[in-house]
Amino acid sequence: MGELAARLGSSALLTDMYELTMLQAGLRSGAAHRRSIFETFGRRLPAGRRYGVVAGTGRALEHLADFRFTDAQLQWLRSESLVDEDTLDYLRDYRFTGTIRGYAEGDVYFPGSPILTVEGTFGDAVILETLILSVLNHDTAVASAASRMTSAAGGRPLSEMGSRRTHESSAVAAARAAAVAGFSATSNLEAGMAYGIPTLGTSAHSFTLIHDTEREAFTAQVESLGADTTVLLDTYDVDEALETAIAVAGTELGGVRLDSGDLAIQASEVRAKLDELGARNTTITVTSDLDEYAIAALTAAPVDAYGVGTRVVTGSGFPTANLVYKLVAHTDSPGGDGEWTAVAKKANGKSSRGGRKQAVRVFDGPIATEEAIGIPQIPADLADGRHLLVDLVVDGVVDDSHTGKEGVRRARARHAESVAELPRTARRLQDGEPAIPTVYYEG
Amino acid sequence: MGELAARLGSSALLTDMYELTMLQAGLRSGAAHRRSIFETFGRRLPAGRRYGVVAGTGRALEHLADFRFTDAQLQWLRSESLVDEDTLDYLRDYRFTGTIRGYAEGDVYFPGSPILTVEGTFGDAVILETLILSVLNHDTAVASAASRMTSAAGGRPLSEMGSRRTHESSAVAAARAAAVAGFSATSNLEAGMAYGIPTLGTSAHSFTLIHDTEREAFTAQVESLGADTTVLLDTYDVDEALETAIAVAGTELGGVRLDSGDLAIQASEVRAKLDELGARNTTITVTSDLDEYAIAALTAAPVDAYGVGTRVVTGSGFPTANLVYKLVAHTDSPGGDGEWTAVAKKANGKSSRGGRKQAVRVFDGPIATEEAIGIPQIPADLADGRHLLVDLVVDGVVDDSHTGKEGVRRARARHAESVAELPRTARRLQDGEPAIPTVYYEG
Repeated sequence: MGELAARLGSSALLTDMYELTMLQAGLRSGAAHRRSIFETFGRRLPAGRRYGVVAGTGRALEHLADFRFTDAQLQWLRSESLVDEDTLDYLRDYRFTGTIRGYAEGDVYFPGSPILTVEGTFGDAVILETLILSVLNHDTAVASAASRMTSAAGGRPLSEMGSRRTHESSAVAAARAAAVAGFSATSNLEAGMAYGIPTLGTSAHSFTLIHDTEREAFTAQVESLGADTTVLLDTYDVDEALETAIAVAGTELGGVRLDSGDLAIQASEVRAKLDELGARNTTITVTSDLDEYAIAALTAAPVDAYGVGTRVVTGSGFPTANLVYKLVAHTDSPGGDGEWTAVAKKANGKSSRGGRKQAVRVFDGPIATEEAIGIPQIPADLADGRHLLVDLVVDGVVDDSHTGKEGVRRARARHAESVAELPRTARRLQDGEPAIPTVYYEG
Repeated sequence: MGELAARLGSSALLTDMYELTMLQAGLRSGAAHRRSIFETFGRRLPAGRRYGVVAGTGRALEHLADFRFTDAQLQWLRSESLVDEDTLDYLRDYRFTGTIRGYAEGDVYFPGSPILTVEGTFGDAVILETLILSVLNHDTAVASAASRMTSAAGGRPLSEMGSRRTHESSAVAAARAAAVAGFSATSNLEAGMAYGIPTLGTSAHSFTLIHDTEREAFTAQVESLGADTTVLLDTYDVDEALETAIAVAGTELGGVRLDSGDLAIQASEVRAKLDELGARNTTITVTSDLDEYAIAALTAAPVDAYGVGTRVVTGSGFPTANLVYKLVAHTDSPGGDGEWTAVAKKANGKSSRGGRKQAVRVFDGPIATEEAIGIPQIPADLADGRHLLVDLVVDGVVDDSHTGKEGVRRARARHAESVAELPRTARRLQDGEPAIPTVYYEG
């Protein structure tokens, strides 16, 4: 189990109140027992983005196991008169027994891609709405930004270091999402312990400042952490710090970090000086307010690794993926055996496509050309594309290969493969259209 | 205790790895035992903002009680060889025994305001950096945006409904931060249970769609939730829905909600029709992608309440407050009795002001005119202003009036008072300078 799932007693109140009042009214009318399909999708990508990256799926499944209403929670709901006794009885016994299918975590997505579908009774499925959207909207926003950064870094390793710039629990999820999208390491210890992501970090300016001299600070660091540590150069004067560091650690110094100033110029100067001093294997890490554009701008600079903070954990301008969770079909009965009725909101635009869906990524050779969405099925001639919906939960049983450390490992591999299949335009940072079109096949 | 603090076994790994490696190296050099002052502040406000709102202080204090390294965490740190045995021993016994002073939660702040200062040994204080910044950066970003919305709403009630657009735990903290900044209610049940914030919500489009007709849906809702419920009008056709709702619930219908379309025009039309039908007390709530500008634009529309989602939980364009936590002074010894040495980073700009600080808000009559920061003290003639630093933790003992439900209640009151003291320009939504200048008094 993951970070929160392992430690929270229950995820059940991470929920909007109206999910429970809808359940109550639906129990009264009987509609709560109708078999239903809810679909999670994005109406569009963030402006100008070429693709998005599905993330959070594994965490959502981890939470599902803890979506149980505790006695204390039920007592609170009663004391506040938020729902009636019939609803409390329903919630007391609640276990999700339906089926969840969706894109494999790490896969890319496009406008309208049915990223996650939940099938169960209306009551069982509607109360998962808020939690599923919270998890997917956050993690997908981070992974989608992180993927652009991975791409811009062109093979150089990236570390996620943004914990301090986002909510303390989001920080763990953000480290995980960045790892799915190809980041090599994180500064966040909880993410290391919970998800097996390599952790990284040595020292900050305060460590230099708490010592009487920079030499004393570097000496303490090297004596304690070894010569292959990374020292921070820009507390007082970068040039002097570099000389001090090599004097203290020798040419075996592991690395230096630059956290301010003009990084391209400084990196070149520092590289030249390191080489001149014989420290040819000492690496240079840069970490100052980087985003995908800043990373791309450093392509020609002698930088060995990037540390990214604020911009990755806040989705590089798009902190939420704006995914929605919509009822798209239902039957008249609790079983899935009746005829499905497709439904969708109609008023005022913001409409969506009702009906159960299939999704296939169509290829021309090794390159993806189309996101084909069939309602309910795609045409037979496209059926040899990659079918995108995989079973995540079947009749209430979670497929554990999608959760925990194994889930992260698989999602990371899936992400790398899916991005490699996209046309080259997908890697452009400039604003543009989605890398492949979404095409609907109806009837 | 609050949401996470009550449910997490330990907050200790919500921490960047370098905090622990700095501790290790500092234990080796002895510098970890030096008495230190770390200061949390923002170098600037988000572009164009007139003031910021301190939030998260109570949550940070709640976490402090759970900042304990568990056996499982220590075992993991050992198995990964992240720190040495001396450091593990230190962490095993870790309890914060220092002193934390800061702005009362809910107060406003300006560039350079010393929002939270942590005094203790370097080792004790440095390892709190990440957690304190995570909490304050998130909650302050949300409260600062929410305060602009409260102001724009001019007394009309605002509800926070953004849980689905942010990480599931951030959602709880965001509901809390919005309440601090004057929001009346939240959709988030956990925030209701943990912090006593009133919760609110009735139904979504899916509830209408799961029934065969809108009339059946409204009937189910009214029978279950009572005639004073709020029905959602824009699933099929707003006009028809309104007639159906009054036919079902009568003129005692509590409220209607509009979630799409041109809200100003629709609100006027709906108001006219409600009045014509005799439903003069039925309220109108609008909830579609609102931010402070959209709220201000609806001032003349007959809207009774606003529901705000994405834009409040993501800080309305500024999802992090970009607060930093910097070592500003230390002594040579573990006690605070030695002479303080002021320290600050110098290289490459991004510099800050070292030294222990005092902060006073200066007034001209009832209106604030200046944020006075004295290093170490402000001049005697300004000392009758409001002293902004209050004791939060003294020698390791947390002042519980700042935590839990009581903390939220007090912070909300403090926020209302502090905003009322600002000059009128503070309420302008247009970009501009901070409402009052920050003035430093040194020496």
